[in-house]
Amino acid sequence: MKYPESIQNLIDSFKKLPGIGEKTAERLALSILDESDEDVNLFSKSLIDTKTKIVRCKECNNLSEDDLCEICKNKNRNKKVMCVVEEPKNIILIEKLNIFDGYYHVLDGLISPIDGINPEDLNIDALIERVKKNKVEELILALKPSIEGETTSLYISKLLESDKVKITKLAYGIPLGAEIDYVDSLTLEMALENRMDITTNKDS
Amino acid sequence: MKYPESIQNLIDSFKKLPGIGEKTAERLALSILDESDEDVNLFSKSLIDTKTKIVRCKECNNLSEDDLCEICKNKNRNKKVMCVVEEPKNIILIEKLNIFDGYYHVLDGLISPIDGINPEDLNIDALIERVKKNKVEELILALKPSIEGETTSLYISKLLESDKVKITKLAYGIPLGAEIDYVDSLTLEMALENRMDITTNKDS
Repeated sequence: MKYPESIQNLIDSFKKLPGIGEKTAERLALSILDESDEDVNLFSKSLIDTKTKIVRCKECNNLSEDDLCEICKNKNRNKKVMCVVEEPKNIILIEKLNIFDGYYHVLDGLISPIDGINPEDLNIDALIERVKKNKVEELILALKPSIEGETTSLYISKLLESDKVKITKLAYGIPLGAEIDYVDSLTLEMALENRMDITTNKDS
Repeated sequence: MKYPESIQNLIDSFKKLPGIGEKTAERLALSILDESDEDVNLFSKSLIDTKTKIVRCKECNNLSEDDLCEICKNKNRNKKVMCVVEEPKNIILIEKLNIFDGYYHVLDGLISPIDGINPEDLNIDALIERVKKNKVEELILALKPSIEGETTSLYISKLLESDKVKITKLAYGIPLGAEIDYVDSLTLEMALENRMDITTNKDS
């Protein structure tokens, strides 16, 4: 015996989502019965909307409902600084900090030969073109501190070697509030190598 | 800066589900972008279907798309045995065992004065009526081994005191494969009190 068809279909749909197993899918599907008609209608509609309305910004490759995303539409941001990220959701995280006012560029992945992801699979050509066209002065590579992130950073730096653009990457070190005992040795090594001078600036 | 409206709505919808937090909702919503159109359409449709088509079986209160659920529609089952469960999903679990061929009755909760759930909030009147009308010979109370489960079992037993129906409940004891060291003391106490005779039947 199974659930009535409509519930069984819903359980199957939930099960297709990442990290959702049989039991969780069942619990989520049954919880829909307790939601208001309005909430369920909105849920159903936003699934279709997300699938049909969302495109990639033709400038930076961010998620967008228009040709240009909200950030690229904004002409008051600083054209001279560009932040390169792996995925669109990284943009949301950085925007929440409210300290960056340049533009973004979404690579849609990182170079990873093991997984068969080569430079030409990523949105790198468009990045180089944008950097040159917009005369970007600083390119911030906000990529994951992993082999893939480092490889991608190196690859992009090489391509822009002859350009005047300054290329930076995020600082690696001990996360704030962390216990030094619990930080992995590679992070500790990085933190030691990149140690910061905190003596008062005696020269000035 | 937020996500485009349709994605943000979808994140909000996922966040309303039990046990789904901000980060998980975001991950689930973004994963929809990678699903096929067909899968997303089916997901969207099954949400609406579940909400609009699912009713309660007028006989046993199970989830159903018709007046009578699949089990109550089946006239070949044993009318003399009825299994009382807390929720519709308990039926699925028991049906999977393939050892019970009676009918079910869904209470839709357990008596719990602390949570303000009184007998009249549950589907108990209809149960008593069905037991009498169908001349049920055994009523199996397959309820949770908790104070609420025990209270509900006791309450139902009292109501049927004058009836000839035999009332049973699930055996409490050590789950199969469990390490005795790790079983809680209450379960162990129950297992000891309800110990089973395994001597060969010498009388017969």
